[in-house]
Amino acid sequence: MFTGVYTPIVTPFDENGALDLERMKHNIDRWSQSELDGLLVLGSNGEFPYISKPEKLELTRFVKENFGRKVLAGTGCHSTAETIELNKEIAAHGVDAVLVLPSFYYRGGMTEEVLYAHFQEVADKSPVPVLLYNMPANTGINLSSSLVSRLSKHENIVGIKDSSGNIVQISEIVRSSPEDFSVLAGSAGFMLPSLAVGAAGVIAALGNIMPERCCSLYKLFQDKKLDEAKALQHAILEINFTVTAGMGVPALKAAMDMLGYKGGFVRKPLRQLSDEKKAIVEDVIQRCVSAVPA
Amino acid sequence: MFTGVYTPIVTPFDENGALDLERMKHNIDRWSQSELDGLLVLGSNGEFPYISKPEKLELTRFVKENFGRKVLAGTGCHSTAETIELNKEIAAHGVDAVLVLPSFYYRGGMTEEVLYAHFQEVADKSPVPVLLYNMPANTGINLSSSLVSRLSKHENIVGIKDSSGNIVQISEIVRSSPEDFSVLAGSAGFMLPSLAVGAAGVIAALGNIMPERCCSLYKLFQDKKLDEAKALQHAILEINFTVTAGMGVPALKAAMDMLGYKGGFVRKPLRQLSDEKKAIVEDVIQRCVSAVPA
Amino acid sequence: MFTGVYTPIVTPFDENGALDLERMKHNIDRWSQSELDGLLVLGSNGEFPYISKPEKLELTRFVKENFGRKVLAGTGCHSTAETIELNKEIAAHGVDAVLVLPSFYYRGGMTEEVLYAHFQEVADKSPVPVLLYNMPANTGINLSSSLVSRLSKHENIVGIKDSSGNIVQISEIVRSSPEDFSVLAGSAGFMLPSLAVGAAGVIAALGNIMPERCCSLYKLFQDKKLDEAKALQHAILEINFTVTAGMGVPALKAAMDMLGYKGGFVRKPLRQLSDEKKAIVEDVIQRCVSAVPA
Amino acid sequence: MFTGVYTPIVTPFDENGALDLERMKHNIDRWSQSELDGLLVLGSNGEFPYISKPEKLELTRFVKENFGRKVLAGTGCHSTAETIELNKEIAAHGVDAVLVLPSFYYRGGMTEEVLYAHFQEVADKSPVPVLLYNMPANTGINLSSSLVSRLSKHENIVGIKDSSGNIVQISEIVRSSPEDFSVLAGSAGFMLPSLAVGAAGVIAALGNIMPERCCSLYKLFQDKKLDEAKALQHAILEINFTVTAGMGVPALKAAMDMLGYKGGFVRKPLRQLSDEKKAIVEDVIQRCVSAVPA
Repeated sequence: MFTGVYTPIVTPFDENGALDLERMKHNIDRWSQSELDGLLVLGSNGEFPYISKPEKLELTRFVKENFGRKVLAGTGCHSTAETIELNKEIAAHGVDAVLVLPSFYYRGGMTEEVLYAHFQEVADKSPVPVLLYNMPANTGINLSSSLVSRLSKHENIVGIKDSSGNIVQISEIVRSSPEDFSVLAGSAGFMLPSLAVGAAGVIAALGNIMPERCCSLYKLFQDKKLDEAKALQHAILEINFTVTAGMGVPALKAAMDMLGYKGGFVRKPLRQLSDEKKAIVEDVIQRCVSAVPA
Repeated sequence: MFTGVYTPIVTPFDENGALDLERMKHNIDRWSQSELDGLLVLGSNGEFPYISKPEKLELTRFVKENFGRKVLAGTGCHSTAETIELNKEIAAHGVDAVLVLPSFYYRGGMTEEVLYAHFQEVADKSPVPVLLYNMPANTGINLSSSLVSRLSKHENIVGIKDSSGNIVQISEIVRSSPEDFSVLAGSAGFMLPSLAVGAAGVIAALGNIMPERCCSLYKLFQDKKLDEAKALQHAILEINFTVTAGMGVPALKAAMDMLGYKGGFVRKPLRQLSDEKKAIVEDVIQRCVSAVPA
Repeated sequence: MFTGVYTPIVTPFDENGALDLERMKHNIDRWSQSELDGLLVLGSNGEFPYISKPEKLELTRFVKENFGRKVLAGTGCHSTAETIELNKEIAAHGVDAVLVLPSFYYRGGMTEEVLYAHFQEVADKSPVPVLLYNMPANTGINLSSSLVSRLSKHENIVGIKDSSGNIVQISEIVRSSPEDFSVLAGSAGFMLPSLAVGAAGVIAALGNIMPERCCSLYKLFQDKKLDEAKALQHAILEINFTVTAGMGVPALKAAMDMLGYKGGFVRKPLRQLSDEKKAIVEDVIQRCVSAVPA
Repeated sequence: MFTGVYTPIVTPFDENGALDLERMKHNIDRWSQSELDGLLVLGSNGEFPYISKPEKLELTRFVKENFGRKVLAGTGCHSTAETIELNKEIAAHGVDAVLVLPSFYYRGGMTEEVLYAHFQEVADKSPVPVLLYNMPANTGINLSSSLVSRLSKHENIVGIKDSSGNIVQISEIVRSSPEDFSVLAGSAGFMLPSLAVGAAGVIAALGNIMPERCCSLYKLFQDKKLDEAKALQHAILEINFTVTAGMGVPALKAAMDMLGYKGGFVRKPLRQLSDEKKAIVEDVIQRCVSAVPA
């Protein structure tokens, strides 16, 4: 099972838009000092749509080589065949599981039956376990609890990252899937309530900049220290909303630069955070850090 | 403060569409045997839009006279003036608070500033405390956490029923409002996660038919019996989704008839539940009841 | 049949929020000088949700007495029974038809079958012809072309005001309804394309302030002067978007004051237009008036 | 300028999912017998997200070699750099313009400024003219009239395919862009109303199976035969809605097989049309063909 706290890591680029593995190495070393259970490479915060296939393989290899715990990789492509092929090549680098976004361009045609058949075939042919990836804010498609429940019976589909924030859906997925199916909250913003209804952990963008606090929150819940867990959940709400949910990857990379990580540049059409927005980010970081020293 | 478990009660009508206070009395007597903290009359489950003003006053008076605990009443009207007037007349019947839906027809014009001024004036002129009522699924308008946070500073605005199901928003409202501001989850479907992030209680349609289970869930959380709370939350998910969230008032009234309450008839354009759907409701009730005997 | 150009008139209030029939009389006299085919009282631009039933009857009577052409009245209420009752009372004042908004609060329950039964019963019991009113931006409910097509077979349902702006839907309603069913575009913003696909006319908020231009556009199309029609349609796009679609009733009333009509005050929670927005309205009026002198 | 009728052609695959250029050749020969002004390869109906870059180049080359009129190619990719690179390689095959979908995965971050900068850079570096492609149903992003108006000033951005169906927006784009900016309706479903407000033509999926009728409609409008144009627009509404808008590419390919074209197979996750749906398609084709013989 996949339990605990994972971070969907950013992909640093240099000023020319090339992969910047030096910055990446710096970050991995820092994350290694935390108690993070694993890293997710090529997630939404990793700018995966802007990254070519050779780069995807190189990145995966690099992270796997430099991080001694679990490594997951995002692999969802538009077509079933392309997804299967990428899964095979990524799996060759030793990832522990692949995280598969649904095909979503023809969203009107992505009925439950179509998605069921797609994920079943992908899982049948994946050399490593598959985690479903529900990200309706970006895809316009929701993986319903009834679809996920059906898919959770596949022996190679072992969990889901649900970024919908729909807590009733998360509850229902936990309830209707096998006990060893790993339901992971898709954001630190709803980590505590997700754990309360039975989620196994979280894949949290906030872990890029505040892995310790994310791990503390998880531990407080495990230890049934509910009041302290609630206080910590509240303390990270604003920064999570502002930086990761609100302004997205450019803000997350800027926040990394402010906190001793190396965010590096984004790829276009995304643009570096404006100075005005940087000031907002600095402000919210200050408030959070003074509220809950790591 | 308003804490614990409240039920937004249905309004039974007879076969001609008239108020049926006999059926109502039967239900109140049964609810009185549970540990419900209070009843809400004229909420969405009470078919308030279909009820005339004289009927609203009569209903409120009747419930107040027959139920010895807290009584809340839904009073939101389209215009500010009409809402204020109804608040005054309803308050004369001794309700503990009014629950005020935002004006919503001109939703494009209901900016945060417009809603702020509306609720401030309503609260200024209400003889009894005001609870905000956030019900975006029906109104098309969401009361944002920033708006609610500002309104929570008004001494006569004492809480909110948030039916959005947006757990991050509920968390943020708890965080940013005074300690004695009562944040109430708007459905049993997300009671436990709401309590986990600091909600004071719940106003749950499920309480119409399963008040004991709703109260048990609340108590389990208070007693920090998290695993049992989670199990009970799971057990009521399906019935809550099917009956109250899915099929609405006609199904809730049909379920009441099945469980010894008296749901009575709905007003048109709503229609009595079809036999086919009744079978679905019966089925899901059986599953729930056998999973968690009251 | 209802053909040509109708205006959904505003309801002027005085500074205390009371009906202001003097201002109304002034406006009616001005509209009477145009070639408008009729007026609609108690539409969305008439702030109908903020007007009591006695006021609705008084307003209807007043408009009917003072305007010598067709008069329509908006009567949709939440419940079927209340709508039927209001239709009867309004009809007693001699309106040519009632415009009936669907019941919409329980939008999840307003299936095609529920709405079909509702409108059929309303039409059965209305003393005057019924026009359907499709206003999804405010109600959250769309009257689909298949529903409208079925309802158009009822002999007392004689047309529709479709404010959706969905031109394919408008085309399909024209195609699938009887020839004498009056499909009326719900805004001047899409008058020409609606006429091109067979609409019988328009009920245009812009007619409050620019009835002559609305009538000219209709006439140009009738005369197959397509290039001039297109130019006029373009000329009114911006003012229509800014004033009626964009800023709503407060802007429309302010524009009336600028153009020799008497808009009067709005009822709360709506608020008088700010000075800043008034400047925008004045600006766009100037551009429109200089582009197409009446 | 790009005027008249274009078809966004399907991409036939064989039963193994490989490009099927024989079927493609068959179709091109048939389309060549119509009066279509041009073909669009790699549009949404061409399953572009499922096609690799080498295949995209091969397809473009093949269509250009076999069709003697204008050829457009869809090239929008997620990143700015990838789009620019594809534009250059596709342009080398002699296409008349590229049709560029906006980057859309990070839709929350795709503000007007971000999209403006993206399209400006793409246009600066494209060897051939750029047509914008607005497809909100698939991308979740709308290119607003204000954005399009600004972009229309770029000398290498020469038009737009607007598939939104928002006729007010289409009108406003025509009004606010240069006279030689080609506004093309994105579907036969709203061809006539778009022409009425000044569109230059249409890129219509229906052209895959009924190019003659699409061209006739265009010509009837040019000849100001409004009643006949309206009748033809009505006649194609149902088939357009059912086949191209409703059931998507699988239905379009099935319809091609029924009408003497060669649709071939779709790529997964799309699936071949079920027999049940094929019967619906056949039925609607019969009705359309008997209503308007080519």
